[in-house]
Amino acid sequence: MKKIVLAYSGGLDTSVAIPWLIDKGYAVIAVALDVGQPDADMPAIQAKAKQVGAIESIVIDAKAEFADRFVAPVIKSNALYEGEYPLVSALSRPLIIEKLVAIAHEQDAQAIAHGSTGKGNDQVRFEAAIHALDPNLLIEAPIRDFHWSREEEIDYAKDHNVPVPIGKASPYSIDANLWGRANEAGVLEDPWTQAPADAWTMTAPVEETPDTPDFLELTFEHGIPTAIDGKPLPLFELIEHLNTLAGKHGIGRIDKIENRLIGIKSREVYEAPAAAVIMAAHKDLENLTLERDVAHYKPLIEQQLSTMIYEAKWISPLFDALMAFIDATQSVVNGVVKMKLFKGQATAVARQSENSLYNKDLATYTSADSFDQEAAAGFIKLWTLPATVFEQVNHIHAEEMNPHD
Amino acid sequence: MKKIVLAYSGGLDTSVAIPWLIDKGYAVIAVALDVGQPDADMPAIQAKAKQVGAIESIVIDAKAEFADRFVAPVIKSNALYEGEYPLVSALSRPLIIEKLVAIAHEQDAQAIAHGSTGKGNDQVRFEAAIHALDPNLLIEAPIRDFHWSREEEIDYAKDHNVPVPIGKASPYSIDANLWGRANEAGVLEDPWTQAPADAWTMTAPVEETPDTPDFLELTFEHGIPTAIDGKPLPLFELIEHLNTLAGKHGIGRIDKIENRLIGIKSREVYEAPAAAVIMAAHKDLENLTLERDVAHYKPLIEQQLSTMIYEAKWISPLFDALMAFIDATQSVVNGVVKMKLFKGQATAVARQSENSLYNKDLATYTSADSFDQEAAAGFIKLWTLPATVFEQVNHIHAEEMNPHD
Amino acid sequence: MKKIVLAYSGGLDTSVAIPWLIDKGYAVIAVALDVGQPDADMPAIQAKAKQVGAIESIVIDAKAEFADRFVAPVIKSNALYEGEYPLVSALSRPLIIEKLVAIAHEQDAQAIAHGSTGKGNDQVRFEAAIHALDPNLLIEAPIRDFHWSREEEIDYAKDHNVPVPIGKASPYSIDANLWGRANEAGVLEDPWTQAPADAWTMTAPVEETPDTPDFLELTFEHGIPTAIDGKPLPLFELIEHLNTLAGKHGIGRIDKIENRLIGIKSREVYEAPAAAVIMAAHKDLENLTLERDVAHYKPLIEQQLSTMIYEAKWISPLFDALMAFIDATQSVVNGVVKMKLFKGQATAVARQSENSLYNKDLATYTSADSFDQEAAAGFIKLWTLPATVFEQVNHIHAEEMNPHD
Amino acid sequence: MKKIVLAYSGGLDTSVAIPWLIDKGYAVIAVALDVGQPDADMPAIQAKAKQVGAIESIVIDAKAEFADRFVAPVIKSNALYEGEYPLVSALSRPLIIEKLVAIAHEQDAQAIAHGSTGKGNDQVRFEAAIHALDPNLLIEAPIRDFHWSREEEIDYAKDHNVPVPIGKASPYSIDANLWGRANEAGVLEDPWTQAPADAWTMTAPVEETPDTPDFLELTFEHGIPTAIDGKPLPLFELIEHLNTLAGKHGIGRIDKIENRLIGIKSREVYEAPAAAVIMAAHKDLENLTLERDVAHYKPLIEQQLSTMIYEAKWISPLFDALMAFIDATQSVVNGVVKMKLFKGQATAVARQSENSLYNKDLATYTSADSFDQEAAAGFIKLWTLPATVFEQVNHIHAEEMNPHD
Repeated sequence: MKKIVLAYSGGLDTSVAIPWLIDKGYAVIAVALDVGQPDADMPAIQAKAKQVGAIESIVIDAKAEFADRFVAPVIKSNALYEGEYPLVSALSRPLIIEKLVAIAHEQDAQAIAHGSTGKGNDQVRFEAAIHALDPNLLIEAPIRDFHWSREEEIDYAKDHNVPVPIGKASPYSIDANLWGRANEAGVLEDPWTQAPADAWTMTAPVEETPDTPDFLELTFEHGIPTAIDGKPLPLFELIEHLNTLAGKHGIGRIDKIENRLIGIKSREVYEAPAAAVIMAAHKDLENLTLERDVAHYKPLIEQQLSTMIYEAKWISPLFDALMAFIDATQSVVNGVVKMKLFKGQATAVARQSENSLYNKDLATYTSADSFDQEAAAGFIKLWTLPATVFEQVNHIHAEEMNPHD
Repeated sequence: MKKIVLAYSGGLDTSVAIPWLIDKGYAVIAVALDVGQPDADMPAIQAKAKQVGAIESIVIDAKAEFADRFVAPVIKSNALYEGEYPLVSALSRPLIIEKLVAIAHEQDAQAIAHGSTGKGNDQVRFEAAIHALDPNLLIEAPIRDFHWSREEEIDYAKDHNVPVPIGKASPYSIDANLWGRANEAGVLEDPWTQAPADAWTMTAPVEETPDTPDFLELTFEHGIPTAIDGKPLPLFELIEHLNTLAGKHGIGRIDKIENRLIGIKSREVYEAPAAAVIMAAHKDLENLTLERDVAHYKPLIEQQLSTMIYEAKWISPLFDALMAFIDATQSVVNGVVKMKLFKGQATAVARQSENSLYNKDLATYTSADSFDQEAAAGFIKLWTLPATVFEQVNHIHAEEMNPHD
Repeated sequence: MKKIVLAYSGGLDTSVAIPWLIDKGYAVIAVALDVGQPDADMPAIQAKAKQVGAIESIVIDAKAEFADRFVAPVIKSNALYEGEYPLVSALSRPLIIEKLVAIAHEQDAQAIAHGSTGKGNDQVRFEAAIHALDPNLLIEAPIRDFHWSREEEIDYAKDHNVPVPIGKASPYSIDANLWGRANEAGVLEDPWTQAPADAWTMTAPVEETPDTPDFLELTFEHGIPTAIDGKPLPLFELIEHLNTLAGKHGIGRIDKIENRLIGIKSREVYEAPAAAVIMAAHKDLENLTLERDVAHYKPLIEQQLSTMIYEAKWISPLFDALMAFIDATQSVVNGVVKMKLFKGQATAVARQSENSLYNKDLATYTSADSFDQEAAAGFIKLWTLPATVFEQVNHIHAEEMNPHD
Repeated sequence: MKKIVLAYSGGLDTSVAIPWLIDKGYAVIAVALDVGQPDADMPAIQAKAKQVGAIESIVIDAKAEFADRFVAPVIKSNALYEGEYPLVSALSRPLIIEKLVAIAHEQDAQAIAHGSTGKGNDQVRFEAAIHALDPNLLIEAPIRDFHWSREEEIDYAKDHNVPVPIGKASPYSIDANLWGRANEAGVLEDPWTQAPADAWTMTAPVEETPDTPDFLELTFEHGIPTAIDGKPLPLFELIEHLNTLAGKHGIGRIDKIENRLIGIKSREVYEAPAAAVIMAAHKDLENLTLERDVAHYKPLIEQQLSTMIYEAKWISPLFDALMAFIDATQSVVNGVVKMKLFKGQATAVARQSENSLYNKDLATYTSADSFDQEAAAGFIKLWTLPATVFEQVNHIHAEEMNPHD
């Protein structure tokens, strides 16, 4: 009998997928990863898969690995898709597939199934990882192939003893992990409608946040946060801690129109409290420690990396080469950043580093001054020479001048 | 007698420069521009220059021109130096020099003087513009050449009947215009010290801002804001209005370590309330109206433009070519963005446009769906093919997989 | 009856497509464009379409329009896909579709047909243009849908009175126009096999080229060649002339492994004699006339443009914005370049321009020297300051020094 | 007594510098590096320095180190300044300074002297390396400071027993090493004048090259050539061999107008026969082995690296990070390229690799075809969707269509 390994979440879609795959002749091995999604009851998820027909149900605690191998690169590269989205869902997909492929190999399964629809990004991310790790594995995408209305899906579920959530279904489509929470669909589909209160769950509305700020000192080593107020924490615990603390202050809400990989625009609402704090602190420490040319070039690499992560290219040789660039820049990103969390904002208010390139003796305007002001005149002459010669020859701007009346 | 045109601000440095230039044998024409710097008493400034020895003192109201020719390109290009600084001071320098060169030509002056020191960016910006517009003009930079301590400067001022501010001098070095306010030096020179309350003047501390938000609708035409809540306003008035309103909500504070053009890092504190509101709204509207490839490429151009503006290259052929790119993208950036101003943050909460590329029929997950989900499978195959073949040949990632234990 | 407009070449594939489309219920309007493909007998092509069943057969002389609207941008932007391929086939596709869509509108046709296979780039270029210009038009791609072997195609042709070429079919798949000739498939599919003599038709082998060079002076106006040895020529005639002359000298052969848009690598052999001469001359003149920052940034835009043209994005807003950048740089690209054509190489040996930025008084090492050598010392201090401070703080390279033994 | 370490070439300028530095109170340690400059008689150079007054004269054979540490990165990154110049002189400067600084430290010298003028690039490269490796070392630049005419220099030489070359001085200013030869000044200063025959010494004129080609197979490992026709060679010997062979065929001549770092344009004539062969072969092998995204992104990194090397930033953290990117891409660049050397051209005519990504089964048009042609239709829909929606909304190109007449 053919075996298939299913990326299982415990929700209706992937639960219905189990009898559907059985109908197609598969024995189903359900695999659920704990990547820090809030409120995930992993034992219940494990039991449910068996209940609806899986021959085996596996649960993997991947929180530490997810933080260390997938979130850490994002921190080092200040990765934000289109400058705003911290890439929450895009990060877990390659890790999930790694685990599923390994299980498929161990158990001689011929196929992998995922629960993505046909118009989102995640189908591409899941399948890109499968193709890269083992292109001989068959892929099933039951939700993409259902062609069911909601009612038909519920009927099918009832017919196959799949538990159906009671009451009105959530209007939203949610994905969440350690690094944040993505929310789309429902009323959000009108860009001119403000996101309603129930679209947010990890963050308080600013109207209800504390009236006194929290301050904390975040220690970084080689670009990665390693301690809060001097207390060392594994990365995944540090993130969990900051999600709670920053969420209380309403930090990390994002509401944006976004370009999906499959060619359409969508309206997305994200929450990423810890990400907002950590990335603001990391950028601030880089301002202190990165040499100017690095500081000015790294954003180009960062943008490319962010787009590639979003666009399903985590497992690719260009991703690896870009990360080699990033890693080379982070050896000096060490130090402490003092963050203020208050009224929806995470602000760096002070920073220090043994690798600081800020040199008070050079920067000051006082007389105790080691900067050679004479050098400036020579610098200016040569710095401006090419554009000056261009103007002398071509007289483009001189003619545009508007004298005062 | 040699004539010189002096960029005059009314402050101690450029006032002392007048007798100093007279000592060097110049007749001094003082020119002060009103580019929207807060609290500028232009008639008093005009009078003061004459009082300390200028043969002529000219005041020019350049607010509208500054907004239309120098701020508008920054809005269209989302220009932020190092991702944060809205380029306040860098914008006024080319305009000031344009006016001074035109006056020098009218009055047959041989030289231009500016009041910058030898370790800042502005000396380069002033002189770059002079070189471009008339490389035959001599340049005097008295403050760079003084080599005076503060006490020596005050003594010189007293000896030459230059009014000296009473009381302790401000610890800060300030430059301001319509688009914001830059503050450096003093206690700010220690990056580990929080900016003190008196470092800020345009923005309220979040602790003291109103407990109810303001909402406003900002209309854009071709990338430029043209109306607030439907009421058309010239750009400079729209900015002035937003500076007041957003400043009240504590919006637009920036505290950053920055890479100066002349090669050192400095710690800068900026306030730019209107800029924060306008640029957030503009970016949000671009998310709705720019095609994906444009949305993903424009940030590279924006970063290059921002660096060039900071680095004294406003008048240059590359700047012009980059702006031709930007202008070509803005014809479709029309529409209305609803902004929420609250507790230090300007947030886009809703947006609409006749040029909107968001298409609910394509984006929705409902059954009324015009997106061809079948197409996705073919897309994924070809999208992932190059990296898949690479992995098949080189087996780099497959070997890294960590099966669960 | 449904009408369809077919992009017709006169070859076997698009001829067989006519009865195939008739079988699908279409009345076929065949349209052939003369874009300068060598040896094209347009009247014979026109007659053949009618003979095999087209209700109408239209031939359009598009040589001048092709040169002025599609080749000229490529010259201005030095566009070479992957640094080598002058984009021959990619250029004609949008123009062909423009003409076909216009005819479809005039004649109330509902569909457009093109003759591309399912694994090349051209299918994407054709269909991208159709989608952009009228997404309501149906698209037929008979060759992609045939699923025939060569023998089956010939049988079908014979059954439907389509003339079949006598003798052994060419082993190659060819596309050609004014700007060059592309050749793939056949024995070329082994990258370790040298391209055989019969793979080339526009260029002589270097072994058989003349033993004396030809010299010519190419005049450019705003980046476009307008005259040879002072004699003005329309662009398409200038290109035709150079194809002959440079082809005789064996200039313009390219043999490369290339990344196709649809995700695979292919081995391609190109000939582009005129392109080789014009692009070398254009680049040389840019070296003389472009300001340094423009010269260093334009290649990034050029690479993006080249990739977009190859990847079927000629009709797109990013293409338009990038061309706005390019056009802004070309106003100063005026002058004359002396080219030497000899033994497979087109070499710029001399150049002059009224917009020349080369200034002998600045560049010379003689005593009649207007360059301020003192300025260099100041320039060097500030130019090197960031990396110097970085090294002082972090001591990365000092420790790597290898003293001599 | 103060000690100074002088970068010594044996020529008139650096020989005259020795008494000049002695006059300034220095004891002079002359250091000459053999970096493969043709015709360098190192023992004679060593003796001459002592003869004209150096207290010590050191000669270092640095050919292997120069090739392995400075040329190899250039090969891996296809580094060509402004797309043409293989960076000959820019490569030796950091190595020379490394050696000089190490000797200064060993011998307790306080200063370093170099022989560059005030308007070239090399002064910046020398001093950037000194600043980075030991900013406390004083720098003397005697040639920049001489302010002598040629006659005055010769008089000074005669007065100080410095041997003066007999006869007319060369009209050119030359620098050479393993990687090539740079020639400027003299008659070359007129861009409209063709470079005369005596400007070239490493390469035969094409008019005099052999009438039969040479073929050779170049083996690469991790991006570096390691063998010719299967015979392993150290990199510096391989380069020397190819300089001779390719020079005989007239390969590697470059004549270009170039943007110097110090802001002016100059006309340069270069010869780099081995570089032309190696870089063409390396690029060709990359076409076969690099994944598409890597192939399309690496040129951006390459251009940045090339500019940085030219602009004196070899020793800098951005250079290191960019090289980390490059190195990450080269592990798969293994294989053999067959090169044809003939009539001034080095052409890749065949190539093979165990890491080849070219897959005949995917690329062929025959029926034995593993490519899924059905996938293309889905791919095209999603690939073109953003620009299609843009056109549907904004109707920019549809209105431009020109129907035939």
